[in-house]
Amino acid sequence: MSLVVVGSVAYDGVETPHGRVDRMLGGAATYIALSASYFTQARIVAVVGDDFAEADTELLASRGIDLEGLERVPGKTFFWAGKYTDDMNDRVTLATDLNVFADFKPKLPESYQNARYLLLGNIQPSLQRSVRAQMKHLRLAGGDTMNYWISDFRGELLETIRHWDFLLINDHEARLLAGENNLRKAASKILDMGPHTLVIKRGEYGAMLFRRDSYFIVPGYLLENVFDPTGAGDCFAGGFIGYLAEKGFDLKKGHINAKELSRAVIYGSVMGSFCCEKFGVDRFRTLTRAEIDARFNEFRAFTEF
Amino acid sequence: MSLVVVGSVAYDGVETPHGRVDRMLGGAATYIALSASYFTQARIVAVVGDDFAEADTELLASRGIDLEGLERVPGKTFFWAGKYTDDMNDRVTLATDLNVFADFKPKLPESYQNARYLLLGNIQPSLQRSVRAQMKHLRLAGGDTMNYWISDFRGELLETIRHWDFLLINDHEARLLAGENNLRKAASKILDMGPHTLVIKRGEYGAMLFRRDSYFIVPGYLLENVFDPTGAGDCFAGGFIGYLAEKGFDLKKGHINAKELSRAVIYGSVMGSFCCEKFGVDRFRTLTRAEIDARFNEFRAFTEF
Repeated sequence: MSLVVVGSVAYDGVETPHGRVDRMLGGAATYIALSASYFTQARIVAVVGDDFAEADTELLASRGIDLEGLERVPGKTFFWAGKYTDDMNDRVTLATDLNVFADFKPKLPESYQNARYLLLGNIQPSLQRSVRAQMKHLRLAGGDTMNYWISDFRGELLETIRHWDFLLINDHEARLLAGENNLRKAASKILDMGPHTLVIKRGEYGAMLFRRDSYFIVPGYLLENVFDPTGAGDCFAGGFIGYLAEKGFDLKKGHINAKELSRAVIYGSVMGSFCCEKFGVDRFRTLTRAEIDARFNEFRAFTEF
Repeated sequence: MSLVVVGSVAYDGVETPHGRVDRMLGGAATYIALSASYFTQARIVAVVGDDFAEADTELLASRGIDLEGLERVPGKTFFWAGKYTDDMNDRVTLATDLNVFADFKPKLPESYQNARYLLLGNIQPSLQRSVRAQMKHLRLAGGDTMNYWISDFRGELLETIRHWDFLLINDHEARLLAGENNLRKAASKILDMGPHTLVIKRGEYGAMLFRRDSYFIVPGYLLENVFDPTGAGDCFAGGFIGYLAEKGFDLKKGHINAKELSRAVIYGSVMGSFCCEKFGVDRFRTLTRAEIDARFNEFRAFTEF
């Protein structure tokens, strides 16, 4: 069943110890939608400028992604540039030119409004809220946020996530949001804020999923080479929600299968790991579902005891 | 079957955000033996001064630990003091007084020499080698080391671990030993140095086990409170080798059961997690095997998908 994805579609400049690309397709919505497209139909809501390349539209379309909600306006597309440290665990932002993204007011095409799944990428909480309000038959909705919104827009953010099924953030953000260093306690506090499911991404160390009555932890996949971690967290989100959408997971029926949620975390981890294997979105030009399922099985092999 | 443990028996002064203890029982051999004692008979080889308290001897004896190899000489027992940072991920050493440990020459009682299992705690590689040479019927031998020996005694260390079945170190040490930042590549290089099995401890992030043809990764246990991480790595080692000794794992028969090695990593993780729950060795005053097995099952519950 189809998935609406809201967030940035951007151009990125990235430098890692393995190389440098001055300008390539990026943005949270791009990565989420590409990743989710292996499991379900993704429908993008985003804005780009008139410099957005036809080849990039084609890549998204080639994955069956619905672009009716990809607004094109005069001006330049959102541009971000960053440089990674040698161990890839940190990055410095070199440029953030919001451009047309500064005035982004997400508008959902009518054909999107009956989609059952919603993934709200990291944008201003009030915009995330406005999108959720436009959806009529949601089975599952959730999204991402970041330090900036947690620190400077806390009230607005809390009001927004109160209505989400799941929140998907990294460990630093979880600690900041909860005001608590211990992740188990932080998770408990965040589950009091509304979402019944919390997914915490830990980069190379894997991911965790918390619910009131259970939790699940998976270590990260050990890549031999991490070429570019940009977008890995968004690809995780795409794999997570994509798998649940593929399965038709329906919370409205009150049915929550914890094992399926755990498997969704594995598919998220799988997609995040593939993302790092090449620069930008390049891995998705050749990646197949068979490779994805093979890596899912690899996760089983190296975690079972 | 019995296990010989070589290393320090010491007094520690520890300060963490949860409190401070000026002097308490510590040392690698202490933690390893206490942890392993839940699975097999541990026999300690170490040296203490004439200040070593009867109550500490009694604690070790109460766990069935053989103390025939615990030499007592005139002088003071090895003393170490350290202070942990707020997030417990780092510590500063405040004092290292080797005292009687400076002249430690491990001597194995005759009754130890037929033991089948050997765990060499982190001491000078040449001493580790001399102990291994005194053992006559080993089924499985391995041990720990640290940055100091890796950097300044590299040749001696390589000659020592060449004859080990397993090496058990942390991620920083693995990277330093291999001269390689990527852990998967580092593991491959270390397996070329002799040991057929490499266990890498990652603190709160868990542990990994590498062999030529397979690997296993487990996330760390999520404690609500980490009171004192001192000794957690040694308790991991004790649980790992203790479980294999309990099972009578016999490499000399050429039989290697990868799943059993993975389970040994889980028992190591379980013992490391308990160690952190109280200051120093205090958790081992009350810990039961039933609690250990319950936490083993908890690991299964939060990692299965």
